[in-house]
Amino acid sequence: MPRILEPVRRLLVGRPYDTERQRGRPLGRAVALPVFSANALSSVAYAPDEILLTLALGGTAALAMGPDIGLVVVAVMLLIVLSYRVSISAYPRGGDYAITRANLGPWAGVTVGAAMMMDLVFTVAVSVAAMAHYLAAVFPALTGAELWVAVAGVVLLALANIRGAGRGRLLPAVLVYLFLALLFGMLVSGLVQDLTGTLGAARSADVEPVPDPAFEQGLGGLAVAVLAVRAFSSGSALATGVEVPAANVDAMAQPRIRTARFVMLAMGLLAGASTLGVMYLADRTNVVFVLDPATLRTTGGGEVPADYVQNPVLAQLANAVFGQGGLLSGALVLLVAVLLLLAGHSAFKSFPELTSRLARDAYLPRQLLTRGDRLGYTNGIVLLTLAALALVVAFRAQTALLVQLYVIGVFLSFTVSQLGMVRHWTRQLAHTPGGRPRQTVRLRRAVNLVGFAVTALVAVVVLVTRFTYGAWVALLAIALMVSVMARIRAHYDAVAAELDLTPAEDARALPSRVHALVLVMSVQRPTLRALAYARASRPSSLEAVVVDLDKGATRRLLAEWDRLQLPVPVTVLASPYREMAEPLIRHLRTLRRSSPRDLVVVYIPEYVVARGWQSLLHNRTTQRIKERLHREPGVMVASVPWQLSRRQGSGGDTRPLPESGPIPPGTGPGPVESPVKDIASRVGETGPLDAGAHDR
Amino acid sequence: MPRILEPVRRLLVGRPYDTERQRGRPLGRAVALPVFSANALSSVAYAPDEILLTLALGGTAALAMGPDIGLVVVAVMLLIVLSYRVSISAYPRGGDYAITRANLGPWAGVTVGAAMMMDLVFTVAVSVAAMAHYLAAVFPALTGAELWVAVAGVVLLALANIRGAGRGRLLPAVLVYLFLALLFGMLVSGLVQDLTGTLGAARSADVEPVPDPAFEQGLGGLAVAVLAVRAFSSGSALATGVEVPAANVDAMAQPRIRTARFVMLAMGLLAGASTLGVMYLADRTNVVFVLDPATLRTTGGGEVPADYVQNPVLAQLANAVFGQGGLLSGALVLLVAVLLLLAGHSAFKSFPELTSRLARDAYLPRQLLTRGDRLGYTNGIVLLTLAALALVVAFRAQTALLVQLYVIGVFLSFTVSQLGMVRHWTRQLAHTPGGRPRQTVRLRRAVNLVGFAVTALVAVVVLVTRFTYGAWVALLAIALMVSVMARIRAHYDAVAAELDLTPAEDARALPSRVHALVLVMSVQRPTLRALAYARASRPSSLEAVVVDLDKGATRRLLAEWDRLQLPVPVTVLASPYREMAEPLIRHLRTLRRSSPRDLVVVYIPEYVVARGWQSLLHNRTTQRIKERLHREPGVMVASVPWQLSRRQGSGGDTRPLPESGPIPPGTGPGPVESPVKDIASRVGETGPLDAGAHDR
Repeated sequence: MPRILEPVRRLLVGRPYDTERQRGRPLGRAVALPVFSANALSSVAYAPDEILLTLALGGTAALAMGPDIGLVVVAVMLLIVLSYRVSISAYPRGGDYAITRANLGPWAGVTVGAAMMMDLVFTVAVSVAAMAHYLAAVFPALTGAELWVAVAGVVLLALANIRGAGRGRLLPAVLVYLFLALLFGMLVSGLVQDLTGTLGAARSADVEPVPDPAFEQGLGGLAVAVLAVRAFSSGSALATGVEVPAANVDAMAQPRIRTARFVMLAMGLLAGASTLGVMYLADRTNVVFVLDPATLRTTGGGEVPADYVQNPVLAQLANAVFGQGGLLSGALVLLVAVLLLLAGHSAFKSFPELTSRLARDAYLPRQLLTRGDRLGYTNGIVLLTLAALALVVAFRAQTALLVQLYVIGVFLSFTVSQLGMVRHWTRQLAHTPGGRPRQTVRLRRAVNLVGFAVTALVAVVVLVTRFTYGAWVALLAIALMVSVMARIRAHYDAVAAELDLTPAEDARALPSRVHALVLVMSVQRPTLRALAYARASRPSSLEAVVVDLDKGATRRLLAEWDRLQLPVPVTVLASPYREMAEPLIRHLRTLRRSSPRDLVVVYIPEYVVARGWQSLLHNRTTQRIKERLHREPGVMVASVPWQLSRRQGSGGDTRPLPESGPIPPGTGPGPVESPVKDIASRVGETGPLDAGAHDR
Repeated sequence: MPRILEPVRRLLVGRPYDTERQRGRPLGRAVALPVFSANALSSVAYAPDEILLTLALGGTAALAMGPDIGLVVVAVMLLIVLSYRVSISAYPRGGDYAITRANLGPWAGVTVGAAMMMDLVFTVAVSVAAMAHYLAAVFPALTGAELWVAVAGVVLLALANIRGAGRGRLLPAVLVYLFLALLFGMLVSGLVQDLTGTLGAARSADVEPVPDPAFEQGLGGLAVAVLAVRAFSSGSALATGVEVPAANVDAMAQPRIRTARFVMLAMGLLAGASTLGVMYLADRTNVVFVLDPATLRTTGGGEVPADYVQNPVLAQLANAVFGQGGLLSGALVLLVAVLLLLAGHSAFKSFPELTSRLARDAYLPRQLLTRGDRLGYTNGIVLLTLAALALVVAFRAQTALLVQLYVIGVFLSFTVSQLGMVRHWTRQLAHTPGGRPRQTVRLRRAVNLVGFAVTALVAVVVLVTRFTYGAWVALLAIALMVSVMARIRAHYDAVAAELDLTPAEDARALPSRVHALVLVMSVQRPTLRALAYARASRPSSLEAVVVDLDKGATRRLLAEWDRLQLPVPVTVLASPYREMAEPLIRHLRTLRRSSPRDLVVVYIPEYVVARGWQSLLHNRTTQRIKERLHREPGVMVASVPWQLSRRQGSGGDTRPLPESGPIPPGTGPGPVESPVKDIASRVGETGPLDAGAHDR
């Protein structure tokens, strides 16, 4: 980063942290539960909406299936939670990538890694999109600007994570508890109102969905089944995020595994209970939620008013139970938005960890391993930010569309991870003696097997019902990521194989002779400094090289060289096509051909300008020559920089120069060839100035 | 340019030319006339239009002033031609920049240079814009797409000039003569038809302009004068391009000056005669031409049909004389388009010459001096292309608007150049003996003085009548360019002052001691090669430096170093904030403080990937470190590249390495410090690995 931007960076990122500051304190149950459940709990903010909007395709009658489908979705979610509770007993350091890699081999691991990367990007995109819609429910002024609110949410999360902020655990915990209190308060008052018959209707109770053409003939047996399956597949978004505690066992207080198991169970029950409550109340208050509000009509069959705004289900319920625009309902909706932001935040923690893990295994670029000033994996954070922004913008922050792609990757990694666990327990069984321990392993394997079967079924259902709706894009993306990671790994493997020392190699071998070559473009101070440095390195032979771009200039240069009596012979290289690098490369190759075991060192005088705009006024010739020379084997490039002073026009370098005074005769560098004896004759020539070295 | 684009470049640009191929053959009168007059003659394609559209502001009655104003404009143009004919006798190598610089000093020269740069950009923009409108007159399908045709014209000219095409002189000469034949054929037949009363009306004869509100009260005395002056100032665009032969005397056949004087006179007479003819016939055929065709009405006072297309004046005349849509009229209009393209082409020759001249005098970046593969100043051509495209797009290819800004720069440089000539002759007079020679000088001074007075007057008139219409933009642009050129010159002067050798300096001084330092990031082949190269340079002292970014990695590195028994001591630098460059710089500064007269050489092992995409997988750390080190005085950077093989997975470097076999004991490099004696103890430490060198 240019130094001029340093203050901006300090303002945004803050002072760098010492590496020692890395470890955090382990979290007890009371804090771990809210912190690691935020992601799973936040699904309540969009999973019910998904079920209802799918059912709405079948018309008003189909909406009655809502609570039943909610029940099935919750059951599946609890099964997955159970399955993960078993997994962590074997892999407390956890993570689906680690489990899969250990049990099903690196390629299954990479596939899961790719799916998880995609999931986490979707977690951010879905969370900020849903957050934007909840905020619009409290602040109607934001309606229509949801996209920009979502983009702002991503940017906020990115900056916070690059700063390393949000490491505090207490505030999030308090906010999640507040959310839970208000949510269950709302659900209980809703139930009480329902029992006492005082439950009001939702705002959307007086509209109804126009059935999809496919379901126009009413709901026959098959049509109902298809609709129910599709609603279930959309609703399975409820299970997203349940793996978070399993991947963070390390961060929990001792006894870690018991803490984690408690957190998972509590999380599953809370998420399940709240989903069931929401689905029940939504049915009782006649909540209607559709993909496109333009497809609604009033219950009388009329047009829906143009200013009709469709709020998320939870916001509608809060208004129905706590009263439209009341303080409590506003607070609950705001807390939902906060919870969604926390879910996005948790993805911002997991994604860079995952990519650094993949980078450590050489499947992703090494840059993802670099820790930033505040100890975060900045490059991973930036990658996630860009990907999430791309999704948010591409889907114009429409939560429903995003969720449907989200579910695929999540269930893919669930499935593969559970399969890995089944394999793990089967292997374990071979080493386990009979009796109780053996039975425990069998039981655990059975749980993971059920988990595998269920998640596989859901994955297939989602894939089939959503294939033409974009599921193929998600699969293609995962396949593409796997193939890129394979190429990256192959590259790193090849580089390591090439760079590693062979046992037979003598690590202390030296080049036999050193041929030094100074590239001369003018007789000015930087050139003389380069010459002095080259001579100080006492090479076996030393020559100055001039590329003849312009005959007059070359002649003047040689005359000046002669006048200064510089003790180094000059070779002039012809350049009929006015190139700098090519004649030099040809000359070097000639040298290397005649003595391939010698080292050739090219000294290049350079000047470094003090201000950025000034570099526009100087050719990038030396830079280009250096890049070209880097591709030549057996050639070392020595840049001799001359720092131009900042005070223009002063004309002097005020810093001490490394040159000492004149060297006493006889003590000069040893094996330097005889001085400019053949120049004078060449200067007088009328023919080409080329010494002809490379044409012979 | 990346090597992958090399074939594309060869296709577009062609094989490079040898520098020897630069000189062209001198042109005799018959060829020089058409080639160097194209620019001036092409003004006939837009100057009459400018006069008529200005007069149209005063309504139909005002159009009758057309021929008279044409007469004045032609007179001014001829005066300028006369004046330049005198100038070239003193400055045959010509150019207004050279004349001004020599007589009025560098700053007047730079001002004229800036004005000329602007003129040439406008020449291209005006020519292609006018060309587009003439083409649309022959091919009505192009109507509405004039902007794209103009853009295509600029791109075509740019490519042709980068290729060095269009150096042939015969084809342009033939085309110009054809144009002249058809133009004068048209004018003569028009006059004959007029005398015999068979001259038809122009297509626009049945429309008439709606007078501008300012002239609604009819044409009072002052209003007529104002309108006439404005029409004259617009029409003075006729004089653009007359300086071209004066700037190209060098390219003409001997006796050069006489050839040039002939060319200038013939050019002036041809341009004058054709303008007068066009203005007369336009009056006789009742041509109407306005800025915005929407302000026209039919002579009956009705609306002009929506599909009315306004063709340029010359196209309307051709149709009136040769018959609408006839072969001859089509051919004439096409030749006008060709002539305009040739005028743009001549600017594409002059602009890079001018900028290279200014760059040689250090007022513009040095890159403008680089000749491309085909000997053109490619960077100057690219600069002109971009500027012309910007103008064409900004003005949406509207010729009339472009011309009005064009004239200002042209007359500014005319004026200053004539003033310079007056000064020249005055100085000359001091050295001229009395009698005839003295009288000749006096006469010449008088001519240039009249030229100066007339052009100054026109410049003032243009400036006053056009100030609020954008003339201030042109002046501001020139002032801005002058100030940028001043800063550039100051920078180059400062650099030269700093880099030039002082007489007292000993060009053969050497640094007293060399301290070598190898940056070690891993114990792999590139590192060992860097170590070997460093040792081969026999430094006074040598150390390997490890920056401790990650404790585990550093410990493993030191163990490996120990195992290989590398004969170089290692210093470990602490880096609490995980930076690579900063600890290194601090270490270097400590070294330099303790012995400021020593040279420090930092050896950096690097590997060079074979394919572009692979570089994304490697940190740019070494690049950043090198850039940072370049800003440290007294530090030389030696990159030791390792070329990764192209065949991935082969794992071996198939090229011969510069290392020889093991060195016999006792013949190793001299003054290297004792081997790794203090590492083993450090590796075992549990504390920080930092050697503490820079903290003490």
